[in-house]
Amino acid sequence: MSQDPLVVFTPSGRRGHFPIGTPVLQAARALGVDIDSTCGGRGLCGRCQVSLAEGEFAKHGVHSCAANLSPRSETELAWEKTHGAKLDGRRLSCSTTIRGDVVIDVPADSQVHRQVVRKGAELGDIALDPAVRLYYVEVQEPDMHLPSSDLRRLKEALDFEWRLTDLQADIRVVQQLQGALRRGDWKVTVAVHEAERIIAVWPGLHEKVYGMAVDVGSTTIAAHLCDLQTGAVIASAGRMNPQIRFGEDLMSRVSYVMMNPGGDGEMTREVRTALNALAAELAAEAGIAVAEIVEATFVGNPVMHHLLFGINPVELGGAPFALATDEAVTGLWATEIDLHIHPNARIYALPCIAGHVGADTAGAILSETPYLTDAMTLIVDIGTNAEIVLGNRQRLLAASSPTGPAFEGAQISCGQRAAPGAIERVRIDRETLEPRFKVIGCELWSDEPGFAEATAATGITGICGSGIIEVLAEMFLAGIIDQDGVIDGALAARTARVKASGRTFTYSLFESAERSLHITQNDVRAIQLAKAALYAGVRLLMDKLGLERIDRIRLAGAFGSHIDVKYAMILGLIPDCALEHVASVGNAAGAGACIALLNRGRRGEIEAAVRRIDKIETAVEASFQQYFVEAMAIPHKCDPFPNLRAVVALPEAVAKDRAGSGRSRRGRRERTPIEGVTT
Amino acid sequence: MSQDPLVVFTPSGRRGHFPIGTPVLQAARALGVDIDSTCGGRGLCGRCQVSLAEGEFAKHGVHSCAANLSPRSETELAWEKTHGAKLDGRRLSCSTTIRGDVVIDVPADSQVHRQVVRKGAELGDIALDPAVRLYYVEVQEPDMHLPSSDLRRLKEALDFEWRLTDLQADIRVVQQLQGALRRGDWKVTVAVHEAERIIAVWPGLHEKVYGMAVDVGSTTIAAHLCDLQTGAVIASAGRMNPQIRFGEDLMSRVSYVMMNPGGDGEMTREVRTALNALAAELAAEAGIAVAEIVEATFVGNPVMHHLLFGINPVELGGAPFALATDEAVTGLWATEIDLHIHPNARIYALPCIAGHVGADTAGAILSETPYLTDAMTLIVDIGTNAEIVLGNRQRLLAASSPTGPAFEGAQISCGQRAAPGAIERVRIDRETLEPRFKVIGCELWSDEPGFAEATAATGITGICGSGIIEVLAEMFLAGIIDQDGVIDGALAARTARVKASGRTFTYSLFESAERSLHITQNDVRAIQLAKAALYAGVRLLMDKLGLERIDRIRLAGAFGSHIDVKYAMILGLIPDCALEHVASVGNAAGAGACIALLNRGRRGEIEAAVRRIDKIETAVEASFQQYFVEAMAIPHKCDPFPNLRAVVALPEAVAKDRAGSGRSRRGRRERTPIEGVTT
Repeated sequence: MSQDPLVVFTPSGRRGHFPIGTPVLQAARALGVDIDSTCGGRGLCGRCQVSLAEGEFAKHGVHSCAANLSPRSETELAWEKTHGAKLDGRRLSCSTTIRGDVVIDVPADSQVHRQVVRKGAELGDIALDPAVRLYYVEVQEPDMHLPSSDLRRLKEALDFEWRLTDLQADIRVVQQLQGALRRGDWKVTVAVHEAERIIAVWPGLHEKVYGMAVDVGSTTIAAHLCDLQTGAVIASAGRMNPQIRFGEDLMSRVSYVMMNPGGDGEMTREVRTALNALAAELAAEAGIAVAEIVEATFVGNPVMHHLLFGINPVELGGAPFALATDEAVTGLWATEIDLHIHPNARIYALPCIAGHVGADTAGAILSETPYLTDAMTLIVDIGTNAEIVLGNRQRLLAASSPTGPAFEGAQISCGQRAAPGAIERVRIDRETLEPRFKVIGCELWSDEPGFAEATAATGITGICGSGIIEVLAEMFLAGIIDQDGVIDGALAARTARVKASGRTFTYSLFESAERSLHITQNDVRAIQLAKAALYAGVRLLMDKLGLERIDRIRLAGAFGSHIDVKYAMILGLIPDCALEHVASVGNAAGAGACIALLNRGRRGEIEAAVRRIDKIETAVEASFQQYFVEAMAIPHKCDPFPNLRAVVALPEAVAKDRAGSGRSRRGRRERTPIEGVTT
Repeated sequence: MSQDPLVVFTPSGRRGHFPIGTPVLQAARALGVDIDSTCGGRGLCGRCQVSLAEGEFAKHGVHSCAANLSPRSETELAWEKTHGAKLDGRRLSCSTTIRGDVVIDVPADSQVHRQVVRKGAELGDIALDPAVRLYYVEVQEPDMHLPSSDLRRLKEALDFEWRLTDLQADIRVVQQLQGALRRGDWKVTVAVHEAERIIAVWPGLHEKVYGMAVDVGSTTIAAHLCDLQTGAVIASAGRMNPQIRFGEDLMSRVSYVMMNPGGDGEMTREVRTALNALAAELAAEAGIAVAEIVEATFVGNPVMHHLLFGINPVELGGAPFALATDEAVTGLWATEIDLHIHPNARIYALPCIAGHVGADTAGAILSETPYLTDAMTLIVDIGTNAEIVLGNRQRLLAASSPTGPAFEGAQISCGQRAAPGAIERVRIDRETLEPRFKVIGCELWSDEPGFAEATAATGITGICGSGIIEVLAEMFLAGIIDQDGVIDGALAARTARVKASGRTFTYSLFESAERSLHITQNDVRAIQLAKAALYAGVRLLMDKLGLERIDRIRLAGAFGSHIDVKYAMILGLIPDCALEHVASVGNAAGAGACIALLNRGRRGEIEAAVRRIDKIETAVEASFQQYFVEAMAIPHKCDPFPNLRAVVALPEAVAKDRAGSGRSRRGRRERTPIEGVTT
């Protein structure tokens, strides 16, 4: 044994002695070194590439040199020719044998469970371990002397070559199997789901397998197409949710169902039609066939989730807001939801959490993993409702706050969706009370040269959600509105922008021949109601955990991505927190769908986390109402916000008022901190 | 404890002490006594009826009297009123409490796993344990203080009340669940498949649940509708397999697929359409809705099986005759095969055994259970091919012999299907050589008075399979044909019934103005070929097991049911065996489908048995050809048939010829008996 050459694999450091002539791949497998292969070591797939590390490795007592590996083989030359690619000094470990001591490096892209390093912040690094994997096998031909079915021999081959035991097979696979085996000359590639079930079969070596991750939002459906062999996102697309014609927001869609029997079926058909269009678009963009998509994962709020799966959502429209199911949907045939990808493709949907807290929130939790950290983490996803998750590895709470659609611009006199021409940034001069602003689609501030020309095409059409937050926060900092949100009519004497309108006043943000954009007292009230609801929900969860401080805040979703967190804190949307620990995380729900697509282990992770979550229904919590009232003030009356004070000069009245604020102190006395919770 | 009353249950003999006031059902459960209940002890379903055994039970030291049970309860009176039935002295064990020592008898029809005693020989007694069972539960209403989904609360109730843990639910059930719970005022009945999966839900108490067992034959599709609560067959129906328009026999249907791409799809659609018509017919006959059928089990030969499941059967049309799958089909949604029963109903199909030996043979094996006995058992199912199963609990062999369609009358000049007007019984006078016969649809022999009038309506149209066997055997016994099957032309001098026809002779069975029915030399040859193939297959399997004698023979299928086993043995279709151990068992395949429907444990039993079977392909066995040649003779040249000689006077030539026959002795010397095999 010690006479045999020593083979050391890096980076794992695993080592062992193997007889001369042993293929490198075989040595790796014997040592449990993680090297990928679809073709089972036949030199076809090229996934098992390794590099020779040359030189003296004193630590291992190895002199590793090219002469200690077999020379380039016919198989390797053939692979290069077939794939039109060069191995560039790498070797196919299946076709390279050991002749002496060597150190073999397994590059990241040859590891089965490689880390997929994702661009951008939305998706952290993911260990690639998709639910659907491909396996190439050579199947014994039928033999009249040993009668046995094609399926049995396929399963025997999968057991022998890949140690996949006790596999089941879809009847749909059985329907295709005999043709595939004979067209492939008894060599086929199968797709196996969850190491349990054969869901597809192709003749010969089939190397392409894709999945789609979908976030079904009330307004937008967003989807990513992923290569399940590499983890790469190879196409992304989004489109309006066609259900919008039944109602802009969730409640109006549920109302539509209540008023129109069968309306749920209509909406289910609409969303599924849109999904098929999206799948076709993604496939076309990536240059693949839709039938090569073998899995789809979904997130969505409870109403979208239920409509997608053909569940009538009316129960979600009124108390007690009972979900039909709070389990993950697993292993469903895509055809069962009329999705035209591979006909045997599987569907996975993350679990919904509670009647107002959906699989989208589960996706955000999976993406942000508060359940893995000691840091007390707040995740807020603001839409028509705000989903709130608070906690850490010890305990996790979730709730929904009824913010209403004000943050989406719906109840604001000059509000609009985020689109070119919408004001998104605002500053107000503390002395002159003159505003300047930026609009979507133009990099210039409104007081910079060229602004008028640059915005001529779009015009200035309204204020989007982030613009509303900024203009109100700036009005507050400039003293135009006070803590109670009242526009100070006395300022009409100082500036023409403050004008009377009936018994209240307005602040003029922009006026032109075509359009004038005012902030009215009602606009201020609408935002106050929305932000008070959001804050009260957060405060309620903090109370449940006995917290006075939150360690980090993650703002998810489109609105959360665009607002300036500082202004959100000034206006009191979110609790006081060190600004460097507040971040927008984009579409965290969609990121969660991608993670579930690329790593099956993390499905179990989020399912377990969701089961553990304490679901809080704000409507039945008396303290929610109290906090709501206190949070109407700007920023609010629940906290002395030390972090905010450190970065922003708040109006003097706030400073005085907060010092003796009793609510939070009372709260602190009433509750004992939970063990292990960072306070 | 010993102060508490003693409760003894019969027939189980289980006994225990329980406090006064304990419901009888609760006591039974505590002792593991098998009492049925769908409603969970709420006095709704009436399935838990028991009887008080009154008197002195010295063995138990119990004086059991009516006073020791609570008086008839309101619940029992209400049950009688609701069901329009009387309990007739029985008690609902859920609503009856213990007041003193009692002996309680649990009648068979109140036991969960009761034996279903079947009429007729086809279906033995079956322990009722269907895969789909009903459970009635009361589900907690949703509570905003403890948000939880309706599915979760349903599962909690099933766990709490029925100890059903880790159930999964079809998405289709989730779609129905919220409506059912609310319509049923939070009381629902669910159907659970294999104690694993909720497949249906109904509001309130639902007590009706049915299954259908189907034998998909090439010619006829036969189905039984069973009440899964009682095991009773409540309707039966059959219809022609509409695939017949693509070809009478299996091979012509496979040829059709080979010649017509898409032909398999056509035939799949045809058989599924017929199944839907059958299901509707069964439901109408039983007065139930098709949607109350929650499971269907199937048997069929390999080609029928594959076409039913949408698998192209061309591979079964040529060597090496590879099945796509030899596994049972389990848990498939009925909709996946376009079967319009309950949309979530499940499909179970018994496994096919080999390319020529199908799930129908598996059904016959399940019905006859040779794998449970020491007796060396031969099962023969004769159709276009003859499926042969031979063995006992030690070892089981299966093969198919290519008999061709002669037994079905296809290659016989005056042959026809079994139908009114067909000759089915024949006797030939040994002296006069005059025949007499019976036709289907008439109880009289042809030489009895009134026969002509009784058959006037149908006429006498041909000979069916059993008639062919009898006429040839009688011709042999009367010396009209010799051991080699040659019609003796010399007899033309004795009787006008023997006539020359070219270079051979014919025997006239019936002549009238409209029709004359002759047995030609070609007819004899066709039957000789068919019976030689059948016998050679049996002999081959006997050789494999080292057998000279078979303990019992079971003739399955329509042909097997109608032939007189004595004539079959005279003609040499089956090997020599004590006549009292030879029996026709009717549609044993269909019986197997019923058994699988009514008892889920027996599914595992047949699946295991089929895996253990040695599959023999006659085409590759050299000795098959040898036996085939020897078996062309009548009865055959392989055996001295002692049992047959004991009951029938064989022509003298046979007696001489067989004494020194070497074949079988050689066979005996060559093989050593298998341990434990009865020879």
